[in-house]
Amino acid sequence: MALIVQKYGGTSVGSIERIRNVAERVAKFKMLGHQVVVVVSAMSGETNRLIALAKEIHKEPDPRELDVLVSTGEQVTIALLAMALKDLGLKARSFTGWQVPLRTDDVHTKARIEHIDDQAMRAALDSGHVVVVAGFQGVDAAGNITTLGRGGSDTTGVALAAALKADECQIYTDVDGVYTTDPRIVPEARRLPTITFEEMLELASLGSKVLQIRSVEFAGKYKVKLRVLSSFEDEGEGTLITFEDESMEQPIISGIAFNRDEAKLTVLGVPDKPGIAATILGAVADANIDVDMIVQNVGANNTTDFTFTVHRGEFKKAMEVLNRVKTEIGAREVSGDDKIAKVSLVGVGMRTHAGVASKMFRTLAAENINMQMISTSEIKISVVVEDKYMELAVRALHQAFDLDKAPAA
Amino acid sequence: MALIVQKYGGTSVGSIERIRNVAERVAKFKMLGHQVVVVVSAMSGETNRLIALAKEIHKEPDPRELDVLVSTGEQVTIALLAMALKDLGLKARSFTGWQVPLRTDDVHTKARIEHIDDQAMRAALDSGHVVVVAGFQGVDAAGNITTLGRGGSDTTGVALAAALKADECQIYTDVDGVYTTDPRIVPEARRLPTITFEEMLELASLGSKVLQIRSVEFAGKYKVKLRVLSSFEDEGEGTLITFEDESMEQPIISGIAFNRDEAKLTVLGVPDKPGIAATILGAVADANIDVDMIVQNVGANNTTDFTFTVHRGEFKKAMEVLNRVKTEIGAREVSGDDKIAKVSLVGVGMRTHAGVASKMFRTLAAENINMQMISTSEIKISVVVEDKYMELAVRALHQAFDLDKAPAA
Repeated sequence: MALIVQKYGGTSVGSIERIRNVAERVAKFKMLGHQVVVVVSAMSGETNRLIALAKEIHKEPDPRELDVLVSTGEQVTIALLAMALKDLGLKARSFTGWQVPLRTDDVHTKARIEHIDDQAMRAALDSGHVVVVAGFQGVDAAGNITTLGRGGSDTTGVALAAALKADECQIYTDVDGVYTTDPRIVPEARRLPTITFEEMLELASLGSKVLQIRSVEFAGKYKVKLRVLSSFEDEGEGTLITFEDESMEQPIISGIAFNRDEAKLTVLGVPDKPGIAATILGAVADANIDVDMIVQNVGANNTTDFTFTVHRGEFKKAMEVLNRVKTEIGAREVSGDDKIAKVSLVGVGMRTHAGVASKMFRTLAAENINMQMISTSEIKISVVVEDKYMELAVRALHQAFDLDKAPAA
Repeated sequence: MALIVQKYGGTSVGSIERIRNVAERVAKFKMLGHQVVVVVSAMSGETNRLIALAKEIHKEPDPRELDVLVSTGEQVTIALLAMALKDLGLKARSFTGWQVPLRTDDVHTKARIEHIDDQAMRAALDSGHVVVVAGFQGVDAAGNITTLGRGGSDTTGVALAAALKADECQIYTDVDGVYTTDPRIVPEARRLPTITFEEMLELASLGSKVLQIRSVEFAGKYKVKLRVLSSFEDEGEGTLITFEDESMEQPIISGIAFNRDEAKLTVLGVPDKPGIAATILGAVADANIDVDMIVQNVGANNTTDFTFTVHRGEFKKAMEVLNRVKTEIGAREVSGDDKIAKVSLVGVGMRTHAGVASKMFRTLAAENINMQMISTSEIKISVVVEDKYMELAVRALHQAFDLDKAPAA
């Protein structure tokens, strides 16, 4: 008998029919003798409907009351799912965040979990109930309703699994696992049976939006066994997210992430002296613009060229900031480009295998794709290319690193 | 400075625009220096929408989970109203039932209030907040969400007023007070500036559905000053519901109630011996059919005729029950009629004034309206007539008792 936490997102509970499907899946696990805790999101569209009501009153609604409002979305789902489970003859009991209780700090709309009391859930499980918990919500020390921020139901699932020392936390979504890359671009893309937490973090932050980054961090911290599965398929093992030391020999590269969300800005001919980078990035940060990649190169005549990327939607604003500080820092020129794409190879095996970078660069060169920026971390190499080459780059790299073939055992 | 509890029903908070109107009305009272507690229902249609979702799963949804589900309706309203109050520059704080806490027994979907802790509300009021409370919901001793049954928000308002020793409990609705009778039938019907609790109880139970009976009983028990007002008019004093001893000389008749919701059943030629009525009504009660009026008359040959009324929707079922027990009780015949109407005069002045009944019967006789049943209580006389005469009977009585004229001071 295992204790399993299952989390279902808004699409998976988006209608009464789908809620029934979830109940049937839960029943299967229960019939196998497992204890099951189910975490659910609001029915798809519901959170947006509630936020729209609030915005009719004020474009920046009071955060405390916004949490009172939007937390009703998950409360509706837990009640309906508990009813559906009972309709199948199972014992079931719904829990709001405060009923668990799932205690958070008091930062409304983006609260952090501080403590989970497992007593009430444990008692319900021990008396044979399926425990149905509202995701995304909690309660602060003063008894105010809080929410963990959008998508926070994944975090709830992982946190409950940690508190209950569950054998596995299953995240059901509309894809059946994590792929080597997006199958819409590379039809040969292969579902990964396992992936490490670190790779998952890099892939998630790079745009493979299967799981919330925060929930993956949480799972890593508390050693929760996390599995991504499709709620629309009956079979399939999904992708198990593992700790590196658990798995056997790692493949060098696990996957290729990519995105077209960024724009590139360059400050040319900056005097190469300490403090210049801080001045440039300080001005950008003051304008509340997040920076992703940063590259600096020494140039001619004791000057340097400084390049960084921002979200494409903030390109114009960032250009205005740079033009303002241009004189102050004595730069020759400011330029920008929003027709770029970022392509990243991710894999923990990269650490122990030399030559990944050179193979990547050779592959791109063979396709005549010029690299505008390069940035590396321990388990990732990212390059920026002209955006029209993105698909070509992803396909060429997928083939070059044999990602379509399962690695030898 | 007074402490006022205001209750707004679903129609009064049925849209963002109406919620803004409620906020503006509350602001007016706050500006006058009063402390205000606002109790709200779910936005009109919302409770029905939620119940329909539950019924898609099961026609008799689990009561505990049904409470979890429908209580979200009021939770949405308190958040939106608190936002709207803050948008007007007021301090405001929403409270769900469990946040008050409003403690109830554990009878889901029709829980009874056991205790209200006023500390948290009092603290919020004292720090200048408008307190916004979700009507209709509470929490049981084990921390389960409960609801007071449909329309229970009136009861919440009165109970909070009692717990806080409020100066007045104002029930805002879509009518501007209690009338001598329905103005749609008698255009001369007059709004009553005051009415006693007992009269209100009789009028409410007889079909003038301005207030929930239970909330009126509650107000009487805890001596809460209750006022019915329109939320769609800015002026108007509404109707104040008083204790008899508070008011001056009472008018003989305060109002005329009527309904067409009932059907009449008669058992003819029953042997006139003890236990017969109990056998008949016992069988009816066993079938879960509520009985309203009961009349028994001695007939010929030591037999009696026994007549009672039930809700019209249960007429067929009640007839089946009677036909089943007919032999057992040795009755000659069973008959029924669902084309009836009940008309009732209500007034505490009736107690001390003889001749009300005879004037009522003379008035009806003058219009050739035959009375099929008569039933009286201390402050009420009800007659059953053929339903096509109902409007005529109400109009004739309204005029005969001078209800269109304000009583002399």
